[in-house]
Amino acid sequence: MSTNFHKHIGGLVATIAGSYREEPYTIALDTQALPNRDTVVEIIHQLRELLFPGYIGKQNLANATIEYHIGDLLIGIQEKLYEQITCALKHQACGNPDGPGDVEERTDAIIHQFLSRIPALRSVLATDVKAAFTGDPSAENTSEVIFSFPGVFAVSVYRLAHELFKLSVPLIPRIMTEYAHSITGIDIHAGAQIGNHFFIDHGTGVVIGETTVIGNHVKIYQGVTLGALSTRGGQTLRGVKRHPTLEDEVTVYSGASILGGDTVIGKEAVIGSNAFITKSVPEGTKVSVRSPELVFKGRTPQEFKQEFIEDWVI
Amino acid sequence: MSTNFHKHIGGLVATIAGSYREEPYTIALDTQALPNRDTVVEIIHQLRELLFPGYIGKQNLANATIEYHIGDLLIGIQEKLYEQITCALKHQACGNPDGPGDVEERTDAIIHQFLSRIPALRSVLATDVKAAFTGDPSAENTSEVIFSFPGVFAVSVYRLAHELFKLSVPLIPRIMTEYAHSITGIDIHAGAQIGNHFFIDHGTGVVIGETTVIGNHVKIYQGVTLGALSTRGGQTLRGVKRHPTLEDEVTVYSGASILGGDTVIGKEAVIGSNAFITKSVPEGTKVSVRSPELVFKGRTPQEFKQEFIEDWVI
Amino acid sequence: MSTNFHKHIGGLVATIAGSYREEPYTIALDTQALPNRDTVVEIIHQLRELLFPGYIGKQNLANATIEYHIGDLLIGIQEKLYEQITCALKHQACGNPDGPGDVEERTDAIIHQFLSRIPALRSVLATDVKAAFTGDPSAENTSEVIFSFPGVFAVSVYRLAHELFKLSVPLIPRIMTEYAHSITGIDIHAGAQIGNHFFIDHGTGVVIGETTVIGNHVKIYQGVTLGALSTRGGQTLRGVKRHPTLEDEVTVYSGASILGGDTVIGKEAVIGSNAFITKSVPEGTKVSVRSPELVFKGRTPQEFKQEFIEDWVI
Amino acid sequence: MSTNFHKHIGGLVATIAGSYREEPYTIALDTQALPNRDTVVEIIHQLRELLFPGYIGKQNLANATIEYHIGDLLIGIQEKLYEQITCALKHQACGNPDGPGDVEERTDAIIHQFLSRIPALRSVLATDVKAAFTGDPSAENTSEVIFSFPGVFAVSVYRLAHELFKLSVPLIPRIMTEYAHSITGIDIHAGAQIGNHFFIDHGTGVVIGETTVIGNHVKIYQGVTLGALSTRGGQTLRGVKRHPTLEDEVTVYSGASILGGDTVIGKEAVIGSNAFITKSVPEGTKVSVRSPELVFKGRTPQEFKQEFIEDWVI
Amino acid sequence: MSTNFHKHIGGLVATIAGSYREEPYTIALDTQALPNRDTVVEIIHQLRELLFPGYIGKQNLANATIEYHIGDLLIGIQEKLYEQITCALKHQACGNPDGPGDVEERTDAIIHQFLSRIPALRSVLATDVKAAFTGDPSAENTSEVIFSFPGVFAVSVYRLAHELFKLSVPLIPRIMTEYAHSITGIDIHAGAQIGNHFFIDHGTGVVIGETTVIGNHVKIYQGVTLGALSTRGGQTLRGVKRHPTLEDEVTVYSGASILGGDTVIGKEAVIGSNAFITKSVPEGTKVSVRSPELVFKGRTPQEFKQEFIEDWVI
Amino acid sequence: MSTNFHKHIGGLVATIAGSYREEPYTIALDTQALPNRDTVVEIIHQLRELLFPGYIGKQNLANATIEYHIGDLLIGIQEKLYEQITCALKHQACGNPDGPGDVEERTDAIIHQFLSRIPALRSVLATDVKAAFTGDPSAENTSEVIFSFPGVFAVSVYRLAHELFKLSVPLIPRIMTEYAHSITGIDIHAGAQIGNHFFIDHGTGVVIGETTVIGNHVKIYQGVTLGALSTRGGQTLRGVKRHPTLEDEVTVYSGASILGGDTVIGKEAVIGSNAFITKSVPEGTKVSVRSPELVFKGRTPQEFKQEFIEDWVI
Repeated sequence: MSTNFHKHIGGLVATIAGSYREEPYTIALDTQALPNRDTVVEIIHQLRELLFPGYIGKQNLANATIEYHIGDLLIGIQEKLYEQITCALKHQACGNPDGPGDVEERTDAIIHQFLSRIPALRSVLATDVKAAFTGDPSAENTSEVIFSFPGVFAVSVYRLAHELFKLSVPLIPRIMTEYAHSITGIDIHAGAQIGNHFFIDHGTGVVIGETTVIGNHVKIYQGVTLGALSTRGGQTLRGVKRHPTLEDEVTVYSGASILGGDTVIGKEAVIGSNAFITKSVPEGTKVSVRSPELVFKGRTPQEFKQEFIEDWVI
Repeated sequence: MSTNFHKHIGGLVATIAGSYREEPYTIALDTQALPNRDTVVEIIHQLRELLFPGYIGKQNLANATIEYHIGDLLIGIQEKLYEQITCALKHQACGNPDGPGDVEERTDAIIHQFLSRIPALRSVLATDVKAAFTGDPSAENTSEVIFSFPGVFAVSVYRLAHELFKLSVPLIPRIMTEYAHSITGIDIHAGAQIGNHFFIDHGTGVVIGETTVIGNHVKIYQGVTLGALSTRGGQTLRGVKRHPTLEDEVTVYSGASILGGDTVIGKEAVIGSNAFITKSVPEGTKVSVRSPELVFKGRTPQEFKQEFIEDWVI
Repeated sequence: MSTNFHKHIGGLVATIAGSYREEPYTIALDTQALPNRDTVVEIIHQLRELLFPGYIGKQNLANATIEYHIGDLLIGIQEKLYEQITCALKHQACGNPDGPGDVEERTDAIIHQFLSRIPALRSVLATDVKAAFTGDPSAENTSEVIFSFPGVFAVSVYRLAHELFKLSVPLIPRIMTEYAHSITGIDIHAGAQIGNHFFIDHGTGVVIGETTVIGNHVKIYQGVTLGALSTRGGQTLRGVKRHPTLEDEVTVYSGASILGGDTVIGKEAVIGSNAFITKSVPEGTKVSVRSPELVFKGRTPQEFKQEFIEDWVI
Repeated sequence: MSTNFHKHIGGLVATIAGSYREEPYTIALDTQALPNRDTVVEIIHQLRELLFPGYIGKQNLANATIEYHIGDLLIGIQEKLYEQITCALKHQACGNPDGPGDVEERTDAIIHQFLSRIPALRSVLATDVKAAFTGDPSAENTSEVIFSFPGVFAVSVYRLAHELFKLSVPLIPRIMTEYAHSITGIDIHAGAQIGNHFFIDHGTGVVIGETTVIGNHVKIYQGVTLGALSTRGGQTLRGVKRHPTLEDEVTVYSGASILGGDTVIGKEAVIGSNAFITKSVPEGTKVSVRSPELVFKGRTPQEFKQEFIEDWVI
Repeated sequence: MSTNFHKHIGGLVATIAGSYREEPYTIALDTQALPNRDTVVEIIHQLRELLFPGYIGKQNLANATIEYHIGDLLIGIQEKLYEQITCALKHQACGNPDGPGDVEERTDAIIHQFLSRIPALRSVLATDVKAAFTGDPSAENTSEVIFSFPGVFAVSVYRLAHELFKLSVPLIPRIMTEYAHSITGIDIHAGAQIGNHFFIDHGTGVVIGETTVIGNHVKIYQGVTLGALSTRGGQTLRGVKRHPTLEDEVTVYSGASILGGDTVIGKEAVIGSNAFITKSVPEGTKVSVRSPELVFKGRTPQEFKQEFIEDWVI
Repeated sequence: MSTNFHKHIGGLVATIAGSYREEPYTIALDTQALPNRDTVVEIIHQLRELLFPGYIGKQNLANATIEYHIGDLLIGIQEKLYEQITCALKHQACGNPDGPGDVEERTDAIIHQFLSRIPALRSVLATDVKAAFTGDPSAENTSEVIFSFPGVFAVSVYRLAHELFKLSVPLIPRIMTEYAHSITGIDIHAGAQIGNHFFIDHGTGVVIGETTVIGNHVKIYQGVTLGALSTRGGQTLRGVKRHPTLEDEVTVYSGASILGGDTVIGKEAVIGSNAFITKSVPEGTKVSVRSPELVFKGRTPQEFKQEFIEDWVI
């Protein structure tokens, strides 16, 4: 260690500490503790073990003894959730003159309602897995789908986070979905409402905004944005529906953007790759981009232009 | 812990366990164990240590003693692979009345062939590293390329997974490529065929489908999709060539999509950014998108429109 | 373990070791050690604890005792940085006949300058957090922004890496930004110059090239590329400005590409989604893509075409 | 790394490998795997959690949910025991021409009988804890006894190992008691038979041999040996009773040795510190050592000699 | 997993759970949590880092920056101690109708007083290290003494535990000294009072009881017991002085026992190996055992008997 | 955290830091780093894997591939030893005006000589294992001996440490033997000289001093001290032979003490339990303690006294 460093460390510490006392935005000294990201990630993994027993966590589970394992898992999940939710509620109440209210009672009620939803979540995730398998020729079997598909991972985490979001748990739902985002490149806000048989293929770059509403049997490809027309309103837009609605059996191909809170994509509509949609599309309609003219330098293929426009592929 | 939770846990356990017994898709009770994802990831890291000695894993390796290190690494890799491949083959055979056959013998043969390919993989990866270095002005040296470039990471994992794919190993190749996908945002199916000197720059959002064929000296940028025209056929399309072919020395710029099993991009062709290609492109041709007309609100730059069309940049 | 494997291991080891001695590109035998990626990641986390005390790392910090914590953190960071930077400088000097010079002295000076920048980095990151909160209606509070937003993560790592880049530290800045890239899908080269109040929303697929210059109050969405027109020049282009300049208060919507070292996006300009810009755009101008004509199969909505062109949303 | 080492490593490896092929006693190459000591230690800790719930392992257990926790613990213990016992039985059968027999069936039966003994073991351990608390004025409460007393630790591990010993499990009982020996300095052979209300105080240096028989309410202090008269017979003595019998309510003070298979210490007898006993002692007798004459250099205390002989303390 | 196990697990769980509800001595269900042994061990290691900076924990500490390290260590120690002491006080108050009182305030006061004692403990430990070095010819230097001597380890842990004992902290002092006991075989009760320059050589088997009083410059060898004459009074003897007093500069050689609360070993007295002392010994007196007559079978050495009695060695 | 603590931490830090600057004995600030105890323990485990392949560390080793494993183990051991020995030599040279000399060269030579001794150590350890098996009727087989016997553990660590001691490595030999001491309660100084076929049974409390010399086929029981007559000479006795010599085939029963540098126990002599020997014993002689007279309170057994003297058991 250099004497240089030793000479300067006193000054460094003083200026950094000084900056903590001045900057209101980037410092949490003396405040209520925040939830612990690592613990939230552990909760996700234990919940996924409940959702997909035998795929995540302990293997060789047996019908005859599964109740013990479920029970012990639930006890562990309950403990960790209790700690994290309590912490998040208290943090939220910072600076609120009324205080956080009866945090323990609220947390109890939240956990009870959340865990009661597990069987229903399992039912809907079974439809998601089925949709992925039947929709993707590269899937060998449903084990592979559960085990490896990033879309299934992101949607399962979203479904858990969404239940906590509905119960007004602060901070934790976002930590959960951002964790899935970092693993998969799929960014689903916990507030979005998504029906059953939902499948995201490949998924990198998908963004699904907070007030999006998605029906059943919807399929989405990589790079799709279900976004707001503009967020320049910033915090004044909180709670306003600013993301689109997709009705049942809609398909959206890669790179398409569907924007705006009033935009409704009607039942069974298909949105082609790279389409940029800011208006509603009626039921049953297929929308594709008339591809921008291609410019060829070298040998232009004869048939290229003619057929192109008829190509309803997406 | 709340008494509330205690009152309800019995019911929770019963309904969750009940759901396991009803839902065929999301449960692996009483069945053959699955491969272990964490072990597969360890195998990847040990194989990458074989491929890039001194960069991954142990440092300070010496010419004089390297054989011992290689040998011990191989022993460890062989053990883990044996366990995982055996497990995957047995899982695949579940429900097959003929059973899995002689799993041990098959695994032995697979591992022998796989490990025999390591020197050849090293040769081809050396060309990939060279392509990355010579193709990217931001690369300081080849160490940086091997050490930090996500494209090189994804391609090295793909090349390993592809060898196992060719040997018909189930589940594991996909676990490997999805691991690389989660780290890099680059989704290469283990079934794709890719030549030497392959370089993916930046890479986030790249999708390369199962039946894609790529020649030598190909270069691809972020957000490129080499995909199927439609997967609506679902599982009926298994094994059908549904992704494109790129011949030698093709370059595909960011955001372009090339779709369809009959689509062939000829030798030395260049596909511009955001191009959407569903037909073959002849050898030597440069295809760029005539950029959609830009609408200016405010001061429109004079020269913008005139020159734009001549701009063959991509 | 099979006798098969035992028979072949001698040959395997020999051919792999042989390949190490032949392949100059993929082998680090007998050379200077490389920096350790895991240690660099630890440094990032400890630096982020300095930047955002209470959010990352230790909680329950108190105003009264914070100096001790800062001091001890700094000592640990200094030690790790010293080791890694020394190693990187020595590796860089390999094959250089003049040798690395006084590595210890250079490292001392680098660390001193780097750590002196922490308070200033905290100030600028405070503006980034503020920009994210005010710009995103889904953000509940600044805690959520610091805690969960991938854009803030990627920018904070970039800002640290950029300081080391400016001090000519080899390898480490790229390891840092590629780490952030793997977590967030946001690829910012450590050489880019970025002003204050910078916000990247969602972020997956963003690429910001080495010679990019970005002013203050700039906002960027997912999938935006700030790139080079062409990198076919390869290593001959090193150091040349080949990425664009964005002046203050520019907004770039999702999927847009802005390319070229001479391209300047003027103050307060807005670039719409999917725009492909290779020329400069004057101050205050809004550029949107005249969306490619949509082709409808089924019921075409009446109002679709008329209004579309007026839609300045992006 | 020195070139010296590089020059010599080949020779080193060859001579060490050569020594493996020559030395029959210290090498296990190509033989059946041995049990894993670390796993056996984990089993001990999980069994102790079953025995003393709330003291070892998980805290905050609740009456309402304890069954789940017990069940899940049992499943985990069963799995690990199954693996280790199978391994030990197969290792034992090495070189036996009849082979190991139906190892799986034997292991099943062993585990069933072993786990069925847990409630009985808990009952007898409760008497040990009571004996420790009532017998030691320094014990604040029974929590401290369970938590901290090395005697209770060693006896609880012995009681577990003894059950496996009775079921003829090879190797594992000794691994268990030697683990307790290394932690406490108390060496109880798993074959010893020990009644209830057994208390070892301090304990360092206690040795209790394989064929020792101990009644109820026995108390033993540090440094006591319950040993064989001679082991010069070596392996010819296997199975012969060569260690003493202590009947109910015997107390043995520190440093005493009681040796020989025919030596019986009768009910309620007391053996004083440092006594060396090789013959039986009748019921109710107190044996103390007439302390060896003390030699004083300096001032000899007057009363020392007279009273000494009357001193029945031990 | 065997079906056998599955058939029986229900019964096993029921009987084990039943045993928890019946046995008052071995179960902590529904009660106040206990301190965590692992955390107490961490506290010991951090306190030892404070006591012996540079030997335990972080190396390369520098005079110029040591305050930061001390401060941060203290913050961490305070946090862990606070949690553990609070827990121990609440556990102690279980079943006490008055409750635990103001646990937080008491804990605060305890920690303040405890940490204030660190400099004084360092001073006295410096004398212990000096005593060990000057007293043991096998000690190369004081670094070796601090680093490796089990006696110094056990005494340093005792000195910490004793401070907490004096402050009436329940459970934790014993966990601390039993930890040292398990590492070193030296069992010092936290209640003992021990002066400066204290040295225990080798140490295995040493027992120092709760009400022992030891002066300055005392030296003790392996296997020495400073014990009670009898503990048959059990819990009725709590608090009574039942262990001996050793005045300044006493030496006790290996295997000696000194017993009884009224036994005082006077200043500068020397107690020979294996002596069994239950009466006071005056100042300056050397007591050795007239060794029990040796019986020779074979050749008896001529000079053996004559000189033996004069042999004041111990 | 209490405000109390906050008020006082400044003072605490100052007084503790002050004590570091004043106390010469217990502080290593600004000095040369010490060896790392954890790394030395890792080295022990890796060396034991070399000594007992298949018992410690990796299992399922195969004759066909063992050279690779040995080689890679040796490389790892060499690296760690190099670092630790270099560190110990530099620490030793602190304050020496001549400096440490060519530490790298000396370390190289030390390691070369040390590793060359491994095959010879294996040969002698094979005799130790054989001695333990043939000498202990409770040993089921040699696997159990290698796997579980504390005496074999302590002796194997001693034999390694002794080689380093002979090569004048400072600090590390003692760290090694004290590690074994803490695990087994057997304290063998690394300087002792011990022949082949050496067996320590049970072992707790055994002390073997620095200048002890032990022949072949010697057997020792728990609690035996091979010590100095007096260490009151302290550091003036360094290097003087002050511990006894045991010739071939000597047996020493539990609790015996043999003291003094001139004391020689002749060939095939047997020393009985608790004997206290300070003079030489001729070859072939059996020495037993005429047991101190036993005092009986209660029923004295008739035959006790008569036969006792004839009892040559030990």
